[in-house]
Amino acid sequence: MSTVLGMNQYGKAETRVVRIYRDTPMHEIRDLNVSTSLRGDFDRAHTIGDQSMIMPTDSQKNTAFAYAKTHGADSIEDYAIALGKRLVTATPAARQVRVRVQEYAWDRIGDHSFVRRGGGVRTCVVTITRGDARDEWDTQVLTGVEDLVVLNSTGSEFKGFLKDEYTTLPETDDRILATSLAATWRHTGTGVDWNRSYEAAVTTLLRTFAGTYSRALQETLYVMGVALLESQDALAEVRFSAPNKHHFLVDFSDFRVNGLTNDGEVFNAADRPCGLIEAQVIRDDAPTARDAWPAEPGFR
Amino acid sequence: MSTVLGMNQYGKAETRVVRIYRDTPMHEIRDLNVSTSLRGDFDRAHTIGDQSMIMPTDSQKNTAFAYAKTHGADSIEDYAIALGKRLVTATPAARQVRVRVQEYAWDRIGDHSFVRRGGGVRTCVVTITRGDARDEWDTQVLTGVEDLVVLNSTGSEFKGFLKDEYTTLPETDDRILATSLAATWRHTGTGVDWNRSYEAAVTTLLRTFAGTYSRALQETLYVMGVALLESQDALAEVRFSAPNKHHFLVDFSDFRVNGLTNDGEVFNAADRPCGLIEAQVIRDDAPTARDAWPAEPGFR
Amino acid sequence: MSTVLGMNQYGKAETRVVRIYRDTPMHEIRDLNVSTSLRGDFDRAHTIGDQSMIMPTDSQKNTAFAYAKTHGADSIEDYAIALGKRLVTATPAARQVRVRVQEYAWDRIGDHSFVRRGGGVRTCVVTITRGDARDEWDTQVLTGVEDLVVLNSTGSEFKGFLKDEYTTLPETDDRILATSLAATWRHTGTGVDWNRSYEAAVTTLLRTFAGTYSRALQETLYVMGVALLESQDALAEVRFSAPNKHHFLVDFSDFRVNGLTNDGEVFNAADRPCGLIEAQVIRDDAPTARDAWPAEPGFR
Amino acid sequence: MSTVLGMNQYGKAETRVVRIYRDTPMHEIRDLNVSTSLRGDFDRAHTIGDQSMIMPTDSQKNTAFAYAKTHGADSIEDYAIALGKRLVTATPAARQVRVRVQEYAWDRIGDHSFVRRGGGVRTCVVTITRGDARDEWDTQVLTGVEDLVVLNSTGSEFKGFLKDEYTTLPETDDRILATSLAATWRHTGTGVDWNRSYEAAVTTLLRTFAGTYSRALQETLYVMGVALLESQDALAEVRFSAPNKHHFLVDFSDFRVNGLTNDGEVFNAADRPCGLIEAQVIRDDAPTARDAWPAEPGFR
Repeated sequence: MSTVLGMNQYGKAETRVVRIYRDTPMHEIRDLNVSTSLRGDFDRAHTIGDQSMIMPTDSQKNTAFAYAKTHGADSIEDYAIALGKRLVTATPAARQVRVRVQEYAWDRIGDHSFVRRGGGVRTCVVTITRGDARDEWDTQVLTGVEDLVVLNSTGSEFKGFLKDEYTTLPETDDRILATSLAATWRHTGTGVDWNRSYEAAVTTLLRTFAGTYSRALQETLYVMGVALLESQDALAEVRFSAPNKHHFLVDFSDFRVNGLTNDGEVFNAADRPCGLIEAQVIRDDAPTARDAWPAEPGFR
Repeated sequence: MSTVLGMNQYGKAETRVVRIYRDTPMHEIRDLNVSTSLRGDFDRAHTIGDQSMIMPTDSQKNTAFAYAKTHGADSIEDYAIALGKRLVTATPAARQVRVRVQEYAWDRIGDHSFVRRGGGVRTCVVTITRGDARDEWDTQVLTGVEDLVVLNSTGSEFKGFLKDEYTTLPETDDRILATSLAATWRHTGTGVDWNRSYEAAVTTLLRTFAGTYSRALQETLYVMGVALLESQDALAEVRFSAPNKHHFLVDFSDFRVNGLTNDGEVFNAADRPCGLIEAQVIRDDAPTARDAWPAEPGFR
Repeated sequence: MSTVLGMNQYGKAETRVVRIYRDTPMHEIRDLNVSTSLRGDFDRAHTIGDQSMIMPTDSQKNTAFAYAKTHGADSIEDYAIALGKRLVTATPAARQVRVRVQEYAWDRIGDHSFVRRGGGVRTCVVTITRGDARDEWDTQVLTGVEDLVVLNSTGSEFKGFLKDEYTTLPETDDRILATSLAATWRHTGTGVDWNRSYEAAVTTLLRTFAGTYSRALQETLYVMGVALLESQDALAEVRFSAPNKHHFLVDFSDFRVNGLTNDGEVFNAADRPCGLIEAQVIRDDAPTARDAWPAEPGFR
Repeated sequence: MSTVLGMNQYGKAETRVVRIYRDTPMHEIRDLNVSTSLRGDFDRAHTIGDQSMIMPTDSQKNTAFAYAKTHGADSIEDYAIALGKRLVTATPAARQVRVRVQEYAWDRIGDHSFVRRGGGVRTCVVTITRGDARDEWDTQVLTGVEDLVVLNSTGSEFKGFLKDEYTTLPETDDRILATSLAATWRHTGTGVDWNRSYEAAVTTLLRTFAGTYSRALQETLYVMGVALLESQDALAEVRFSAPNKHHFLVDFSDFRVNGLTNDGEVFNAADRPCGLIEAQVIRDDAPTARDAWPAEPGFR
């Protein structure tokens, strides 16, 4: 028997790039968290400690900062594509790069003053593969939102489910449905107005969540996915990861207070455990996604 | 020598109360994190394990839920006052209660649908002391905001400071000033429109932060404190805890790229360490604050 | 065009199961974080809200608790296998289950008293697929450790690397090498003494980390992977995810103190960004891993 | 009316100092998180933006690094005293300094290799006040431990407590008692073998926790406090902050499984809310603690 190096990638995670546009008295801000990973023929770095083909992660970080200036960050997708191509070009052994960006939104409170908005975080994951010819690239762009916490205070039921001897959950016609949504959608191409597409996508997701009667979180996610794909022709698929953030109706029946009832008004917002619903909705004629490297090593 | 019990308090921390108002088709939501602490003559619980004067923290939690229904949570201050009086009344050995509430804001996306806003968290700390007569209470109300992340992309300098042999920081005429503000202000009474006062206070803080040229974060905080006290007569003082969230200008000078400069445009947002500026601004004729128990045991 | 449901799974995440063995005066404790996910034919739950084939996640949680009693948790792998088979059996529409368990270690301080150890967390991910016949199962077991923070204070270099115009990192013959290791290894079968195998694996990883001169973190990981596979015949592969936790030598040269030097003695432990090295080492005759579902939906 | 500046302090929070001792082949490591705060006459920095008396927080950070070399960090208390005196000396306007240090423990796995231990974190808070004469100092040293998670799987009851109409908690003769202890004790002087004192203190706390039958967490804390003060004459007082980390016995009675019982064997470890017990035990002849500045501004 012998052992061999399998998949491998390396890069810089979580470079916190803040870009200020200050060409006019009214400044703009882009607040990014940038992670890059290179894949290619880096075997000798592992097997014999030869670093001659390794572009240091420190240089990747420097490039992320420099490109925020020279290329700019009008949209994170566009920035990630430029940064990714640069990193592959500068690293002959690299065959592919993955650039992941999170963007934190700020609201304006003055010409050069801002307050951080909170709420959902915009994300993108761009995977770029070197082609045979110079300046030939295969580019896959995913856009997404995470930590988008939404709640319906009614219009949600959960009943008619399978039961076994460990089932104690009562059926309910009316419950709170809440989740901290992570959604990612795949674009079929790159000729996209990324900012407009993102804003429209989040609007569609929120509107659909709010407007859908739910027989289960699975159904709600599916309807949201269909609505998103129908709203933008250039999307191939969407994937959701949605914890069912349980809000338990507090039981008032044992309180010794006359007439005290809890008609869907007071809930205990629980931390753990949570349900976790994950689903993908695909346009049936969509090209397959590139998954050159499993998302998470370590088999998570 | 002998040892004695000193200060002590007990209660329930971080009860996550969600209150839905559903009397009309357009629901309202209040999303609270409630902590209660009782102080009084609980010595025998410690010294001989006698629990007969101890109202269980589980009952304090139940009361927090029940009062969200019966008293409601139109404002967290009003809710905390009612809950606090109840807890002291129900616990004969209690002399004082402290109720701390955090409120997470949600934005409406439908009649009964919401998206969590993020951004600053509203807080209150209410301290209620039993008086000699029945229904005689001494009540101190603090309102505040925390995790309010603000940034000025110019209009901030730091120079003319003291230097010793370890000082390497260059003086600067133009830097990013950013902080994650925690501010707390003390009301002189309880006859207050709490929600209106809170909204006005945050507006004043944000407007002053945005409108003030800063020679140091200390100066900015002081100006904000003065503005807040001047904007509302019924405030006695305000306290700030403000990490100086450093945004370091990235040094492009060692990059071998012609003409690449960084004129206040690209920054590295650092995590740790941070400066930490803490200050109090007081109305000079204000009554003294109640500090019956140091805020943090363990001497933190 | 039309849209279809793609991959999907659902379950209960992070059920916090604490199991006390109290058959003798000297108690034992197992402290687990259990997540289960079912995969199969759950399409109608998504497309038309039919829950009749859905075993509630609440029942999955209840089963996790009950099996901690009836089956026990002598090893997390064995517990996860039993729990997983039960969940598939109880859910006719399920074709596969994934059970992920984290175990937090405690040290004994008395017959029935414990102090939580901290340090690395033991993990397993068990994937069980229903076979054609009753009681026929295909079982894949991964064991791992995460949050195992290790540091070499010398014996690490980084030099001879590729350089471009953004490279400013100096080469070094002597640096701190530190990582918070996440490692996962795949067993070829299930007839394993899980606890003994785990302890031996961690010992091998630590000993190899400590005993290896490092020309890059990539090389260290590779050597650790080879050592692990060589130490246990029944392992097919190992995957690492290893942040390069940077410890920057503090520059004393600008301090105006005579004779003050920093010869590898004082470091600034940085939070973000970090390098991130990910690699897989495989036994070349190992059967392929089951990856019926990409680890992370949402393309992360 | 007019407003005035009240209490104020400023400094550098969370400087991550790692000190390697490498004078022999067997290295030593000290891994510290250092926060410093200066108090004194810094009014003009706030009121008119005059920074001439302000030692920058960046210089405080540099000094923390330099002193790790020149003074060393054999014990965090000794290091904090030296660092604090230096900062006050270098800053004429400063009257007082507070230095807080956390130390993360590592276990040895090789001559220059370590694995982070986890478990409780050692802490100190040193407050130093300038005296009238040169080199005259008033020094208060607090030592502590935090995140020390301990659990008794039996030997704990909770009954005979006060009840009101919201009380639903059943009395119990046997429950899990668990807490994540934060304890801080005050030394009466500075001529202390800090490391030996700390080790002995933690041993006493653990042994007493393990060896005490508990009628409530209050009683356990009190007994631990008395034991600690009795074990070391040079301690004036100890303060505890102890969340009651609830472990709820899982109710098996509704499972439809013959003979399934839960006799104190399977628990749900809850996150929030928790009970929170805080108490101080004092040597009755001890001098008063210095509390020149409330621990937490913002009235927390």
